[in-house]
Parts: sequence; C-alpha cells; structure tokens
Amino acid sequence: MTGRNIVLVDPLPRTLELIMEPDVRARLEKLGELVISEDRQMPAEQVDALLPDTVLIFGQTDMPKERLERAPKLKAIINVESNFLPNIDYQACVERGIWVITPASAFSSPVAEASLGMALDLARGITIADRQFRDGTEEYGLAGNIETFRYAGAPIGIIGFGDLGRELRELTRPFKNEVRVYDPWLPNEIIERLDGIPSNLDDVVSKSRVVYVFASVTSENQGFIGKRQFDAMQPGSAFLLMSRAAVVDFPAMLGAVKSGHIRAATDVFPDEPVAVDDQVRSIPGLLLSAHRTGGTRDAFYKLGSMAVADAELIMKGLPPQLCRRADPATASRLRSKPVSVS
Amino acid sequence: MTGRNIVLVDPLPRTLELIMEPDVRARLEKLGELVISEDRQMPAEQVDALLPDTVLIFGQTDMPKERLERAPKLKAIINVESNFLPNIDYQACVERGIWVITPASAFSSPVAEASLGMALDLARGITIADRQFRDGTEEYGLAGNIETFRYAGAPIGIIGFGDLGRELRELTRPFKNEVRVYDPWLPNEIIERLDGIPSNLDDVVSKSRVVYVFASVTSENQGFIGKRQFDAMQPGSAFLLMSRAAVVDFPAMLGAVKSGHIRAATDVFPDEPVAVDDQVRSIPGLLLSAHRTGGTRDAFYKLGSMAVADAELIMKGLPPQLCRRADPATASRLRSKPVSVS
Amino acid sequence: MTGRNIVLVDPLPRTLELIMEPDVRARLEKLGELVISEDRQMPAEQVDALLPDTVLIFGQTDMPKERLERAPKLKAIINVESNFLPNIDYQACVERGIWVITPASAFSSPVAEASLGMALDLARGITIADRQFRDGTEEYGLAGNIETFRYAGAPIGIIGFGDLGRELRELTRPFKNEVRVYDPWLPNEIIERLDGIPSNLDDVVSKSRVVYVFASVTSENQGFIGKRQFDAMQPGSAFLLMSRAAVVDFPAMLGAVKSGHIRAATDVFPDEPVAVDDQVRSIPGLLLSAHRTGGTRDAFYKLGSMAVADAELIMKGLPPQLCRRADPATASRLRSKPVSVS
Amino acid sequence: MTGRNIVLVDPLPRTLELIMEPDVRARLEKLGELVISEDRQMPAEQVDALLPDTVLIFGQTDMPKERLERAPKLKAIINVESNFLPNIDYQACVERGIWVITPASAFSSPVAEASLGMALDLARGITIADRQFRDGTEEYGLAGNIETFRYAGAPIGIIGFGDLGRELRELTRPFKNEVRVYDPWLPNEIIERLDGIPSNLDDVVSKSRVVYVFASVTSENQGFIGKRQFDAMQPGSAFLLMSRAAVVDFPAMLGAVKSGHIRAATDVFPDEPVAVDDQVRSIPGLLLSAHRTGGTRDAFYKLGSMAVADAELIMKGLPPQLCRRADPATASRLRSKPVSVS
Repeated sequence: MTGRNIVLVDPLPRTLELIMEPDVRARLEKLGELVISEDRQMPAEQVDALLPDTVLIFGQTDMPKERLERAPKLKAIINVESNFLPNIDYQACVERGIWVITPASAFSSPVAEASLGMALDLARGITIADRQFRDGTEEYGLAGNIETFRYAGAPIGIIGFGDLGRELRELTRPFKNEVRVYDPWLPNEIIERLDGIPSNLDDVVSKSRVVYVFASVTSENQGFIGKRQFDAMQPGSAFLLMSRAAVVDFPAMLGAVKSGHIRAATDVFPDEPVAVDDQVRSIPGLLLSAHRTGGTRDAFYKLGSMAVADAELIMKGLPPQLCRRADPATASRLRSKPVSVS
Repeated sequence: MTGRNIVLVDPLPRTLELIMEPDVRARLEKLGELVISEDRQMPAEQVDALLPDTVLIFGQTDMPKERLERAPKLKAIINVESNFLPNIDYQACVERGIWVITPASAFSSPVAEASLGMALDLARGITIADRQFRDGTEEYGLAGNIETFRYAGAPIGIIGFGDLGRELRELTRPFKNEVRVYDPWLPNEIIERLDGIPSNLDDVVSKSRVVYVFASVTSENQGFIGKRQFDAMQPGSAFLLMSRAAVVDFPAMLGAVKSGHIRAATDVFPDEPVAVDDQVRSIPGLLLSAHRTGGTRDAFYKLGSMAVADAELIMKGLPPQLCRRADPATASRLRSKPVSVS
Repeated sequence: MTGRNIVLVDPLPRTLELIMEPDVRARLEKLGELVISEDRQMPAEQVDALLPDTVLIFGQTDMPKERLERAPKLKAIINVESNFLPNIDYQACVERGIWVITPASAFSSPVAEASLGMALDLARGITIADRQFRDGTEEYGLAGNIETFRYAGAPIGIIGFGDLGRELRELTRPFKNEVRVYDPWLPNEIIERLDGIPSNLDDVVSKSRVVYVFASVTSENQGFIGKRQFDAMQPGSAFLLMSRAAVVDFPAMLGAVKSGHIRAATDVFPDEPVAVDDQVRSIPGLLLSAHRTGGTRDAFYKLGSMAVADAELIMKGLPPQLCRRADPATASRLRSKPVSVS
Repeated sequence: MTGRNIVLVDPLPRTLELIMEPDVRARLEKLGELVISEDRQMPAEQVDALLPDTVLIFGQTDMPKERLERAPKLKAIINVESNFLPNIDYQACVERGIWVITPASAFSSPVAEASLGMALDLARGITIADRQFRDGTEEYGLAGNIETFRYAGAPIGIIGFGDLGRELRELTRPFKNEVRVYDPWLPNEIIERLDGIPSNLDDVVSKSRVVYVFASVTSENQGFIGKRQFDAMQPGSAFLLMSRAAVVDFPAMLGAVKSGHIRAATDVFPDEPVAVDDQVRSIPGLLLSAHRTGGTRDAFYKLGSMAVADAELIMKGLPPQLCRRADPATASRLRSKPVSVS
C-alpha cells in the first residue's frame, strides 16, 4: 500500500469509449489514477498487484474474499455490464462497507419506449398493415381495423415492476389504461403509488388486453409464464416479452401466436443469435426484435454517467443514488446470463 | 307545418348502426320523430316534404337558402361525415340561429394514438427490424441501432394544432420532447398553454427530429410542404403525414425518403385506393397505412354519441359543447374531399 | 363612411393601462386608428359619429340594432369587463357576422390558484392554526390536527365546470382526489374527458369532503345551493364560494358555518363592500377574501392580451380562439352584475 | 435460544394503536410472537431475556454490539419514530445482515401538502387578507393584491430533495414553476429526472420567488441558511421552513420578515413548545404552524403500514422497499432530536 489511489477499470464486454462521453471520462479521471484493461479482462497478476492501492473498481473483476482482504482502501465495485455475477463475495463486501452497485436502469428508458411502440404496433396492427400494403392486400378504413383494438383505455398488465416497469407505467399514463401489476418482490404500496392495481399472475394475464413482461430471471421463476397463462389470455390480446426469454415457456408462447389466439412481440430469444431457419422468422403474428431495444447509444453513455456520478458520491462518503445495490440475499437469486457483446 | 317534430337522418356514407350503439340510438329517438334514409341519400322530394316539421338534421343533406326558408323549426344540421361541404348556405344558417356542427374530433384519439405508434416505429426502426429479422439479416444490440434515434427527448414538430395535434401533444408528454408548433390559424397563447413553442414552418421542419402533419387542406395551403421543406429536414429524421395528402407535395416526400434523407409514415395518398403497381409499395423507408388510423369502431361510435349529446343540448336551448361549429368564414376555405366509404 | 378604420376603445371600468402591457398596446395600435375614452364612458354623439368607420370595439358600449345598422365595417365587439350585458342586440350581431366576445377566462387562473390555496387552508386548518398561535392557544403535533383532514385523496366536488372549474381540476390532479362535477349546461363527455364523475347536485354536496362553487348566476339558478344542500354536506367538510354570491342562499351558508357543521371560504358577498359591522367578520370557521382572488395584475394584462390576439385573428378573417363568444341563447340568461371598479 | 420467534415491540414515543389500524396490526401478529412495551421503554432485563429469540424489533431500543451478538436470529430493527439515533451499532448490523430501517417518508405527503398550502397562502396573502377582513381593513379587487404575487409560473427553490422535496415537486407540477434544487447529497441526474435545475444555494435563494426548506440537520449544516441568504432573497418573496429549525439562523429569518423584506412560514422552532411571550407570535408577515404539518392521523398509520410491509418482505428474505435504510456513513451525520411526543 502506497499513497496511490488506483481506479481499476476492467469493463469488458464494455469499453470506456462505449460508455463514457468525453466530459464523463474527464470526471472519471479526477477520481484517482486510472489503470485500464479494455482489450481483454485484466490479468490476475495485474489485479493482485493493484489491489492494495485500489479505491474503485469499474468492471466485472472477480472479487472473492481473499482479494477483498488485500484491498483495504476499496470503497466500491461498480459493475458496468449491468447484471450482478456470482464472482464476488457479496457478504464480505457488506461487512467491509464496500458498495457493490450497477447502473442497470440505464437501459430502462430505451426499452420502455420501444415497448410502448411495440404495444401500439400490436394493438393497431402497424407492422402487419405495412406488410399487407407491400403485398398489395391492404384494407382501407374500418375494414383495415377489424383485427385491431384501441390501446387507449385498454386494460394493461405489467409483470415485473422494477425501473423498467415503472418507466413504462409513466409512458402509458396519457392513455388512461387500467394497469394491473404482478411483482412478488414488492409491497402493494409501491404499485398503488403509481396508480397500479396489485394483482396475482392469473388476473394480470386474464384481465389485460396488453401484457408486458419485464421480470428478471431468478433461480425460482424460470418459465413461470407458460401454456396455462397463454390459454388464459383474452383472444386477440397482445403479449410483449422484453426482459429475458427464460421467464416464459418460449414454445408455449409461439404456439399461442401461431394458433392466432394472441399476438406477441419479443426482444429476446432462448438462443441468440437466432438460427437462420428458426420458425420464429415466419410467424405472422409475431413482432420480432433482435435484442436491440435496450442497446442504444444513449443508454451506454448513461451506463457510464450513472457509474461515475455514484462513484463521486461514494468518494465523498455519501451513499450512491443512481445505481442498484447488490443485496446479498437477492444477488444470489439472480440468474441472468451476462451479455457477451454490447 | 304540423305539430310533428321530425329528426331527419340522412347519414350516408355513414349508417346509424355504424355510428350509434343501442343506448345512443335510444337517446336519439327521444329527440323527435325519426325519418331515416340509409341505403341512399334522402330523395329531394322527401326532404322537401319533411322540412316544415324538421327540428334536427343528422347528415349531409343539401341545404341551400331556399330549403332553410322552408324549415322554420330547424335548430341544427349535424354533419356526421365530419367534413363541412359547400352544399349549405352557412351565412343563412347563422342568421337564422341554426347550428351547423360536426363531431370531427371523434377521429382525433385513434389517429393520435396511431401517430405516436408510427413515430416510435420510425425512430426506433420497429417495422424495419421486423422485416430484417424475417429476411435473416437482423442485427443484435448496438449494431441494430445504428440508424435509429431515441424518441424520448427528441425535438418534435407539429403542423396543424387542432384537436388532433393537441391530443398527440398530450400523448407525447411523458417523453419530454421540445415541441414546436406551426398553425397560422391560432394565436400563440393556445400553443403556449400546452407547453409548445409557436414557430414558423421553417423552424418546425429544420429543428425537429420528428415532424407530424395534422393540417387540414384549405384553398390556400395545398402542397405547402414541398421540396424546400424536405431538404431542410435533418438527415435521418422522421416525417408523418396523418391528415390529408394534398397538404404535401407527395412526389417530393417520396423522393426524400427514397434518397435515404428521411424516413416517413403516411396514412393518406393522393389517390385511394392506391394502384397495385404504385412505387410507394416498395420504398423501404416508408411506413405504409391505408387510411385506416382514424376509422376504428370506437371512433365511429363516438361520432354518433357526440352528435346526439350536442343535439340534446341544442334542444334544451343550450349551445353545443362537443362538435365543431362551421364558421362561415372558415367553412368556405376548407377543401376536404368527403370520404365515399366508411 | 370614409377610408378610415377606427378601433373604438371604451373600456370603463377598465383602462388601457390596466389591461395592456406596452407590447400588447403596440399590437392594438396596428389594428386601426385608435379612438379612446378612458375617463368616462364614450359620449353617445362621439360613438355615433365614429360608427361608420369603426371596425372593432373594445369595451362595453351600448350597441342596439340601430347602432349596428350604422356600423357596416364592424367586425367585432370585445367586452373587456368580462361579463356580457343586455346592452347589445346579440341576435343582430349574429346575423351581421359581428363577433361579440369577452376574454372572461383571464381570471380563471388566479381564481383557481387561490381556490386551491383556500381549500388546503380549510382542510389543514392553516389560517385557524396561525390565529391560535398568535393567541397562545396553539396545539402541537397530532393534537393540532384533530379537526383537520387530508386534502390529498379526499373526494371533491365542483359546481360549475367552465374555464375556472377545469383549471382547478388540473391544479388538483397531483392530489388524486375523486372529482364529482355538477354542471347542467354540459354533456357528460366534457366532464369525463378530464377524469371527473358527472353527478347531480345532491351527490356532489353529500359525497364530497371539499365543495367548490364556480357557477355563474343565471335567471334560473339564484340561491340554488341552500339549506338542504348545506345540511346534506358531511360534518367538518369544506365549502368554497368563488364565483357569485347569488348562487347560494348566503344566510344558510353562514348558518352552517356558525353551527360548526362545515367550514367555508368565500371570495364574494351579497353586498360589497361588506358593512363594517357585518357578522361575517367574526365567524371563526369562515375564511374571508374581499373579492380579490381574480383581480391580480397579471389577470388584467391577460384580459388585454387575449382581446388583442383574438382581434388580430378576426381582422385576418379567422375565428377568435381565446375569448368566449356570446351565444344569443345563453347571453340572455346570464345575470352577473358588472363590476364597478377593477 | 428456543423455537420461539419474538417480535419485540418497543415503540415509545409511539404506541401500536397510534401507528397501526386493525388490519395492519393483524398482519404484524402473523410475523411472530409479539412482546410489547408501550407505557414505558422496555426494561433492559426484558430486552436481554428476549434477544436470543427475537427476529424483529419495532422501536428505538438501544442495540449496541453486545446486544446484537446476543440476537442471532435478528433480521431487522425498524425505527418507528422516524429519526435514526446513535444508540445502535450500525456497522455491526451491516456486518450481520441486519436491516436497520425507518418509515420516515410516512410524513412526506402531509408535509408536502401543507407546504404547498402555505406557499399559496404567502404568495396570495390568504391568511393576512382574512385577518384584515376581521379587522375591517380589507381591500377589494386589485387594491387587495398589491403585495401579492402569482404562485403559478413563479420560480421556486427547493432546499433538500429527499422524499419530501420530491413530493412537493410533484404537487407543484400543474403550476409550471421553474424549479431550482439544492441538495449536496445528490447527483444532478436525480434532480433533472424530475425536471428540476440542479443549483447551488446562492442561486436557489436569489433566483426564486418561493424557497422551500426541507433539509435534514447534520453535524455539518446547522444554520447554513443565514443572514447572507436572507439578504440575497428577492424583496417580497416567500420562505418556508418545513423540516428542522436548526438548519436556519432563526433570528436572521425573523429579522428578514420583521423588516418586511420577505414573508415566511414556519412549522418548526428552536424550542418547542414556543414560549408564551415569544416575539414570533406577533410578527405580521410570519405564518405560524405548531410543528403540526406532518403529524396527521393518516401519517401515523402509514408509519405502521410501511413498517409492517417491509418486515413482511424481510421475513421472506427480500429487501425492504418502503423504508429508508440506515447507511452507517450517513446515519452518523444526522443530528435530529427525536420527538418526545407524537
């Protein structure tokens, strides 16, 4: 341990250029002496050598207890990928007062915006009507609206009411929908504050005309939306899968769409990239998006600006305000696969 | 003139069934003795025979001065097509205290909703990405967002700020856009009340990332958005034509899209239905909608419920509150073609 | 009739300085040749001499049919006091296409703001608590809240849903009240659009914790809120009289407050100024305001700017957009006393 | 340690009846075996005897490290007074994974509501006008508004942007104020998300017409709003002290009001109850409230319902969602005096 204050930057699969605009990068540089490994994960020996003087880690570096013990000045580990991984001893961090945080909500705004766009698309038949027009089979006026419904005023359901679900709730406000919410991790009051109706899963799927899925995957909820739920949906209603493919029984979802029972939009798939000959590519009632609703340029920049803003607070001895904190109890339940590319 | 109070119903191209749910129809029947011609326009002789006892007309019946003079009990003419036509002597109606009104704003809500959906589509590339996915050329994550922009926070422009423009303005509120408005028929205060920036046409097209066109056609503004305006738009920005094809130079619009300068969505075309071999069917950057954003079932019902609600007020000696009034000065400037089918 | 275009300005009890800031005054001067009478009503001979060349009247000049016939160029009469008077032949104006308008809604914003302030005062006991503190009888914490209630979430009622009622409705939105509205001149749809519940008078008074009165006086509704209505109010609820004293049975209102049944605030009185020894000055549960909620400096300026903006539209052949139009049928029912001072 | 699961309830100065309605109390009883001390603080021997089986503590019981070590099953300490005290070893709690939380935001809603009411009162002169009316010195119309200003559109400043400041920000939204915020504990993004302008203290006081103080007292900020800040305020502007008297230089505030430079409202005082002969009781421009804006019946009930809802989550192994967490770093800076009575 010397007088140095190292900021260890190990951001793969991100790069600093991807996540920080010049002014944010400049603020990062004021927090300490930057040591950066961008083309590969930082080698273990280098990490070990730097730890005694490290005050902040930006990245997904493995941090088991032994490493934490060698980092007496460490104040925070800031995951810039956005999913907590099981490579950190979270309990040991808590005991040492080391913040473990991630700016996960950086992606909420672009995903919420795209979700509303896709819901309007499914309700009003926008993409399908465009395809028919190109095929020369368009219908004008009322005849072109037979299989559509008005999004305004339609009852909607939200499954998973974290940052993303709440942002969507705000975007949909002018449409005056009745909003049912299912989120078993939340007290009713959080939902009611935003004028939602706390509901069980059955009510959300059966009483809504549009169902948005924003739930994270945990060790306990894989495939919790399955054939029973799709059967319970109203004929002609819309289903949007915007978070993780693993929370639904994907074949059951495709079956419900192929049969014409519902329409669906999905931004995620069990295996990405999707195989060239995958059946999803030819299901008419399915609106397809290649895991691209969150990854906008502004979202990556926000990832960086949130990370740096919270690091600034932490260096002043204040709690972080923007990033999500890893609660040891819940971090261990999360089962997201980290992305391999940005 | 007898003791009868006739309600003359001559609604073509609408039908009563199309525009009135049973409860509204029941209210209509309380207003007087209904005489209905739905399968054809009411024959002139029948109209002439009924006029002395007619208190209300629902429809687009010709009403020159001579007919008005023969209708001493007439209180209102309620156009249920939604565009005022030059077949009424508006000045004579004013002088006699006969209301001439139309529930035109019935279509505002579905068009505004679809407009926002299409703007989100153009901004985030929803339909294009779906098409690429079906073609097997989809791009994941950031690579799939190269030609997109965030709708949230983007400056938007609204051309024509009647009921429809104002409704869109409310729907877009959660996205916190800067909103410029061009409407030469309005004082600035109307625009500022809704947190818009009163602007000239040049500023709206050049400073906005998304331009919505909701303007009516008049004898003076045909083709007022032309090559100069499209050239002035920002590269990659979005243009939505939602009101009448005649307000733009349609070939200039198509040229701007084909060149890749802008993306556009259009719900209207110079000639409808569009010819099978029309070039619009194959322009990639164009989102196509067959004059179908307004004609939803609920909108037709609203046409009827607004008409009846105002008729009820008028029969009580109160002014109408929901329909638009034909101001003689402006009615003569409007040049919409009436629709021939619903 | 010469080539002159006179703008006749006869604004008593207003003055131009009171209602127009310099930039608005400058716009007025561009509309024609101003002839102004501010220290007294314009003499009849002067009016008569000017009429042949008058294009606009700003003021409350008598305009019977004979005068209208002598004013062939007249396009609009703009009442800048804000209440229509029976000194105009409204029907003759309609027949001649002369707009008769008034910028009455200029006062809506300050009155709505003060109304909400007074409602919060009555609900939370603000003025009463201040008075007790000055008397040395204040109570701290919960003990100080025994006779109060939370405004947030309380059901409220609005009687009279014109510009003022609608503005209050918007101001109260963040408090998430259930809002009942009684307005016999409006269709339900106007109320429902703003998320109000159309109700009869009995429901409004008996189901609300706060009742706002914004109704105009007509020949038919004098004293329509009387003992029966006050008796039906919930004990401890709040009543706000913000429009005209004549719409309530004033002694009945005072009785309900004196008995402790309700609290009330009033901005208007049967006779103004109120007599020095009037009992209202010593009723503890009454919040007193000397007809001052509307008359703010900005409201008077808005009166002028709305008048000029609409005059500009009218001179271009466009309909006015900001002022209220005198409908002959309703103008004759209004019974407001004009104010004698500003 | 036995098989019992004790819920230790030691809520003074609260009582369970004060903070829990019957349904919430019933939920509390499902969380374990209740042991309650309401008439006095729970005796040390009793606490010590219960600790081995205690799973939850509701109250302000002293919990030094030695006690924590004797409570192996303890999951959470829930302060129901609402201010964290220095009688807990916060770091030891963190290390053991014991949540220390408090439902402090229960008071935000009533305080925010009263704050807006008082701000409208100061801006529009409501209480002062009522007092003048009672004295027979009221002024009507514009003359009664000489020393008032419109709250709508006025620039406002918020000092301290926690739950309370954010709630006020939402309540004031319809008034379209420019909102400056000073909060040195927060990153700009939190302020900007709610459409505030992050500002330094000087700008907040000098550029606002209404200044709200919601800041907590810390070891570092006592009296940070003093003569310099009051001098910098605009003449005739309004100052509202709603959190803790210690954050302002109280005599300097009184001086600024007595001189007529500003108006102020205060809900808190350096010593409470205020002495009978305190000068505050006779300063005309001061709106007085006896620390009563937060202590409404619904707020106390919310204290209890938030506490129980979070306890339910914690017992399921989930993180609390409603209460504020004691961060060891900041808990040690807070210097609030606990209330001695509810």
